[in-house]
Amino acid sequence: MERRGIQGLVVLGDTTLGNPDLTYVVGRNLARGGIYFKRAACKPLLITSILDVLTARGGRVENVRTFTDLGFEKLLVEHGQTEAYPRLILEVLTQLGVAGKVILAGRNDLAWGTYLLDKLRSLGVRISCESSPTILEVARATKSVSELHDIRGVGSKTSKVVSKVLDELKALKRRRGHLMLGGRVATIKSVKRLISTQLAIEGLTAPEGTIFAIGPSSADPHNSGIPGAEIRERKLIVFDIFPQCESGYWFDLTRTFVIGRADKRAKVLFDAVQDAQDSAIAILKNGLSGQSAMALACDVIEKYGFRTVRDVYAGKAREISSGFIHSLGHGVGLTIGERPYLSFQNQDPLKTGNVVTVEPGVYLPKFGGVRIEDTVHITGRACENLSKARKEFELN
Amino acid sequence: MERRGIQGLVVLGDTTLGNPDLTYVVGRNLARGGIYFKRAACKPLLITSILDVLTARGGRVENVRTFTDLGFEKLLVEHGQTEAYPRLILEVLTQLGVAGKVILAGRNDLAWGTYLLDKLRSLGVRISCESSPTILEVARATKSVSELHDIRGVGSKTSKVVSKVLDELKALKRRRGHLMLGGRVATIKSVKRLISTQLAIEGLTAPEGTIFAIGPSSADPHNSGIPGAEIRERKLIVFDIFPQCESGYWFDLTRTFVIGRADKRAKVLFDAVQDAQDSAIAILKNGLSGQSAMALACDVIEKYGFRTVRDVYAGKAREISSGFIHSLGHGVGLTIGERPYLSFQNQDPLKTGNVVTVEPGVYLPKFGGVRIEDTVHITGRACENLSKARKEFELN
Repeated sequence: MERRGIQGLVVLGDTTLGNPDLTYVVGRNLARGGIYFKRAACKPLLITSILDVLTARGGRVENVRTFTDLGFEKLLVEHGQTEAYPRLILEVLTQLGVAGKVILAGRNDLAWGTYLLDKLRSLGVRISCESSPTILEVARATKSVSELHDIRGVGSKTSKVVSKVLDELKALKRRRGHLMLGGRVATIKSVKRLISTQLAIEGLTAPEGTIFAIGPSSADPHNSGIPGAEIRERKLIVFDIFPQCESGYWFDLTRTFVIGRADKRAKVLFDAVQDAQDSAIAILKNGLSGQSAMALACDVIEKYGFRTVRDVYAGKAREISSGFIHSLGHGVGLTIGERPYLSFQNQDPLKTGNVVTVEPGVYLPKFGGVRIEDTVHITGRACENLSKARKEFELN
Repeated sequence: MERRGIQGLVVLGDTTLGNPDLTYVVGRNLARGGIYFKRAACKPLLITSILDVLTARGGRVENVRTFTDLGFEKLLVEHGQTEAYPRLILEVLTQLGVAGKVILAGRNDLAWGTYLLDKLRSLGVRISCESSPTILEVARATKSVSELHDIRGVGSKTSKVVSKVLDELKALKRRRGHLMLGGRVATIKSVKRLISTQLAIEGLTAPEGTIFAIGPSSADPHNSGIPGAEIRERKLIVFDIFPQCESGYWFDLTRTFVIGRADKRAKVLFDAVQDAQDSAIAILKNGLSGQSAMALACDVIEKYGFRTVRDVYAGKAREISSGFIHSLGHGVGLTIGERPYLSFQNQDPLKTGNVVTVEPGVYLPKFGGVRIEDTVHITGRACENLSKARKEFELN
């Protein structure tokens, strides 16, 4: 904070859910959120609802107080419901002796955020903005030992879910090229039920759903699968799963396969993507830039004759709809997409403690797509692959 | 918008997850979010990533364009990564002819929000704040037919999960006052696995977890249950479940019960809470204030000899730690806690189309608590109870 000239950091929100910065500084899930205060070089203070105070005391902040402790009810009477909140922030900042630059952080509605900002400034608080990467983005990009422990845990559970689902699919009977499940032709919907049951058994949730897309719809990286679509042999299936564990950490893993035998075109896609992923994983380590990893993946995929987004960055195309149409990877932690990025836009060196996905993909509209994704931990000499699920292309 | 003197509304975010305002205006889940523009009295425009554009087109906005369509890459080159985003907003507002008051909305990091706001203002955009309730809070409080359809759906599935879990618990063998599950003494952890499996079967997720608290820990309304705690007979168990369905709508339901027979003290708690809930549900309808419903619930609970938060609002106590220590209810929709509130602070009349929880509770520290909660839909003449799970106090 000192280096950035910030004297006070205030992280707030009405819940820690979907509020990774607040979850990060608090170290616990608080249903009603709270306000975290940090004066540079001092211990932090956390204000929570009386209903969350016991939970909060189990987290990272020693000094946890309730809104009532700090006289919030009195401010409500004096200033009304809208103004009581900024007044409370002002009082605490004054008590902490913060008169310099203050950063407000935490995910909040911007309409309300505009009010809060304008009001605090009118009360004399010197609120500054930060350009990205913010102080908390930087902190969150490098995982601590306890964060890595949680991510390893969700990684091992996610890998187990994927392996079990693949085993179940392999064990299903086939009739005239279709997979049969519970006496009926298996559909995306029925397979998703298998997946969510396995997630539940492992104690994971998937708040953003799961992608299980077959055939042409697998060529759209964000198509999560048409519920009624039938599971057939010889079609490309992209299975991309991104669950979250109870403490808030995510994981990201994708496998692409066909039931039965794949045709030649699908095999070329698979080989290109697998080759790109292996090549990228082989060079990832502390000090390498996200850009370099991305460039290498593009090199490999172009060698197989497919286009890549390099054409867009090089100004050769306005956009591309076929080939490797997205970036190589992104950070994973308390969100499913954060710093650092493995993309042409990221020239910064990766650091030990970063956790990133490595997920090249090649997509051919109207035919299908292949994406293979692992989540890895960057270390000084290499990277540690946290995904344990096998990469089996033809399920026989 | 006209009534509030707003000419432009911009709702933005890097994902719709945990961003209810953006989910609401878009009508779909977009993994990479987007920017929604609305000029008063005109049709809206939505900008999304190329990866989300097909999904977005299935939602509420007809006019969906990609960042590339609007020349974002050019702005990136001209203004750099940080400034390109506000520049894009400025360009679109200019194209739409918006020169008057603009509201920024959607959940976003405030550190970045501060930058966005200051930059847009420096570029001449007249950004205003809204006092709560914001235009989107007001819109979201009254559910449309299609929203009610989704909430009814998640309500019926949630009720099914609760009924099935109660059936399973009843069917378990008991040994020396303990419930047995899979040959071992059942714990909170093993019961939570039953719950999450049932949730998965119904296609629901519980991103905020589930409360299953036994004995003294049930006296803390936000204690979600100590994983290792054993399930015993004759102890109060608070089972509070708040799942979300795929389209983003939540539901909230609580049952309190004992395995076997309850003692007299626990029965009095249950009767007080059930009586308070029945009384409140009987009067809830369009036009009644949230405050009146809360006051009635307090009347009933006080009649049974317990304290209520009325003492705090009447200035008789600074805080209370026993009795009815929270409010009667809150709205439910794309969040698990929103307008309208059934509390002393809400003097506004409820409206047809509101969906609220009715959840009185009485808590005795070191002993336990009882909370009974249904989610109801306010109509012109009464309220429709969307919770179908039975209220059985003694599981025998």
